[in-house]
Amino acid sequence: MSEQPAGEGGLTLSALQRQIRRMYGAKDEARGDAATFLWLTEEFGELATALRSGTDEELALEMADVLAWLATLANIRGIDLEAAVARKYGAACPGCQAVPCICDPAEKP
Amino acid sequence: MSEQPAGEGGLTLSALQRQIRRMYGAKDEARGDAATFLWLTEEFGELATALRSGTDEELALEMADVLAWLATLANIRGIDLEAAVARKYGAACPGCQAVPCICDPAEKP
Repeated sequence: MSEQPAGEGGLTLSALQRQIRRMYGAKDEARGDAATFLWLTEEFGELATALRSGTDEELALEMADVLAWLATLANIRGIDLEAAVARKYGAACPGCQAVPCICDPAEKP
Repeated sequence: MSEQPAGEGGLTLSALQRQIRRMYGAKDEARGDAATFLWLTEEFGELATALRSGTDEELALEMADVLAWLATLANIRGIDLEAAVARKYGAACPGCQAVPCICDPAEKP
């Protein structure tokens, strides 16, 4: 991807959102959030199929599709995925504040 | 997050998978993929609720939960999310090979 940062060379969530916006931004704005959620849900179903009976490559690409549609939905609603996940999971388990998680297995198995 | 790369300073998908593994890896392996998909699906439902009636912050944190459970599922099945999304969406639209996408709106609205 052209948006990879220097350093580790990995794809950040922000770079993914920008890449999705470059490819699909105009269509996404026109489609809106509810119709986009339908597409995301369709991909979510395909993920279940791949999980149950797909090859590793099929499973990987269905996960990529779910991620791409989640990034699309985030773009439409102006959500920064990277900031959100860092806020909730960046330091430790949001339930017990520990790493690794020590939440009661009855609550978080 | 302690796993942020140098440079842009953003959170890569690989760093997210590592952070989730540090927090939940032992529990995740014990729970397995099918039970994990149930948790992911519960969060997916909560995302729908937040999309319909939540605040921006609630929506952002539900998106973070979906991402975290997707990373969990990827960890359990040994899928590299960053490589998968780069393979499918890294260069251009996988349908039309263009940026921005010029797929027929009947196929990709």
